[in-house]
Amino acid sequence: MKKLINDVDSLLVESLDGFAAAHADIVTLGEGGPFVRRRRLKEGKVALISGGGSGHEPLHTGFVGHGMLDAACPGQVFTSPTPDQMLAAAQAVDTGAGVLFIVKNYSGDMMNFQMAAEMVACENATVVVNDDVAVEDSTYTTGRRGVAGTLFVEKIVGAAAERGDSLAALKVLGDSVNKATASMGVALTSCTVPAAGKPTFQIGPDEMEMGVGIHGEPGRRRVKLASADEIAAELTGAILKDLSLTSGTEVVLLVNGFGGTPLLELYLMVTAARRVLGGAGIKIARHLTGSYVTSLEMAGCSISVCAADPAALALWDAPVHTAALRWGM
Amino acid sequence: MKKLINDVDSLLVESLDGFAAAHADIVTLGEGGPFVRRRRLKEGKVALISGGGSGHEPLHTGFVGHGMLDAACPGQVFTSPTPDQMLAAAQAVDTGAGVLFIVKNYSGDMMNFQMAAEMVACENATVVVNDDVAVEDSTYTTGRRGVAGTLFVEKIVGAAAERGDSLAALKVLGDSVNKATASMGVALTSCTVPAAGKPTFQIGPDEMEMGVGIHGEPGRRRVKLASADEIAAELTGAILKDLSLTSGTEVVLLVNGFGGTPLLELYLMVTAARRVLGGAGIKIARHLTGSYVTSLEMAGCSISVCAADPAALALWDAPVHTAALRWGM
Repeated sequence: MKKLINDVDSLLVESLDGFAAAHADIVTLGEGGPFVRRRRLKEGKVALISGGGSGHEPLHTGFVGHGMLDAACPGQVFTSPTPDQMLAAAQAVDTGAGVLFIVKNYSGDMMNFQMAAEMVACENATVVVNDDVAVEDSTYTTGRRGVAGTLFVEKIVGAAAERGDSLAALKVLGDSVNKATASMGVALTSCTVPAAGKPTFQIGPDEMEMGVGIHGEPGRRRVKLASADEIAAELTGAILKDLSLTSGTEVVLLVNGFGGTPLLELYLMVTAARRVLGGAGIKIARHLTGSYVTSLEMAGCSISVCAADPAALALWDAPVHTAALRWGM
Repeated sequence: MKKLINDVDSLLVESLDGFAAAHADIVTLGEGGPFVRRRRLKEGKVALISGGGSGHEPLHTGFVGHGMLDAACPGQVFTSPTPDQMLAAAQAVDTGAGVLFIVKNYSGDMMNFQMAAEMVACENATVVVNDDVAVEDSTYTTGRRGVAGTLFVEKIVGAAAERGDSLAALKVLGDSVNKATASMGVALTSCTVPAAGKPTFQIGPDEMEMGVGIHGEPGRRRVKLASADEIAAELTGAILKDLSLTSGTEVVLLVNGFGGTPLLELYLMVTAARRVLGGAGIKIARHLTGSYVTSLEMAGCSISVCAADPAALALWDAPVHTAALRWGM
């Protein structure tokens, strides 16, 4: 295993320390369990909290800040955070308007966030993200997995929270963004979880895992490596089928790297995805391209599409100031 | 070779098409040779042009926009752009105040940019970046290589150009930023150039290349994999020695990923580098952490330090709006 670490046991804490130091203008580390929170809270605003296993950075810690999350609870690599972390985060960032939890659909995350939701004193609600159209049920999931589309939910709901929307309204909005979002990914190589010390899965030099999950869990099928155009056709085709988009629909397109794929290839995948979407008459109103929801150093990418009406696009465009996304301020 | 491409020959063009589509609010592709230019030029502003082989994205195309470059000329992967490209770019973005070329010190880039400088009709000057302290002379270089510190030059000089500094003043500033900057990197794996189809170098499962260049060219020595703290001590130690920084100096710290190393590890390297710099009494005034100057999918990182007085820090903080760096607007 080749990683820039000192010790597997201290990896997360040392990484969070570096993150907090590098972004001290935006975030601070919470006490009473490792979590990342906004340095400055906004009184009367609903607090948005997400979290999940580490190894997907910049998700979620990189999305804490103005216009997105108020706190993120990182577990160990690919391991759910604990209810204690979520509870401590909720107590730290609730300013009286309640807490909205944004949870990717994995059994461990769901169970622990539900326990936290029951323990926390303040009013709260939960939006579950399950945008991955690759498979129903998977290694760590009952039902569809939550993957890169989580970024759309956190950005759009985050902007609405910033303008003062109520907890009830944000819950409705979050569910609607999730419903309007679909994703699917492909892996060319495995990732290696530090505590395991060996690749999560074996894959041949001419193979790819079509529909892979963000922990390297199996997708639809193991197939021979195909061209970027063929891959984009399969990923985007599955997304279009799931969302039943009609010609003329406006969308936000996220071409997301899993960690080990260079931007040179991700932008080529943008071209490939645009061919498919353009052919279907879909209008790409906004692009986001980069490694935002990763699987450690796994090579590959996912495509996410979020159907967005003008109101959702305005929330997408609203100012954001986090470690990983920053515009308008 | 596992890459998300259609054909090696069309890789660059298809990637640039995706880049231009994804960032159509900022850039457009130039005619008469592939280059990326700002969509809107500022009359009377000195034009900043950089370029070099592709495969280092987001450098340089991702740094085109308000507050940084006016144009970037991408060559094929790890191959110098041609004088024709640079000439076309200069003609497209010069608004009468002259052109400043920012060139990383590689023999091919140096030769071609020099030819372009002689061919171009407008007043021009060149800043050569050679921040890599690992080795004197290398596979593609006479003298020190230009690596991730190029980002400092492009950002700080870009901000000064935006406020209206003259060509002569920008040349002096660029040289001074280069002189105040030092970098060194380490590779854990090789990269694979698409046209070659096989890894650039062989490296054992327990080895790393200390002082590697951004094309995978040899560094100081091939050694056993060490801890993050040991790596940071060697990289940062070499940088401090080169810059002869005294206690109390303010710096900008860039922990830069080479493409295949996750943010989780890069932020841990921030912690490790902070230990060394803090021990030497150096004050880190600003951080930048991420994969900004890459070597395709190579695993590893570099550390860059730029000594910055309050004037340079103000230019660093000045608004920037590019695909890869965006703040203040």
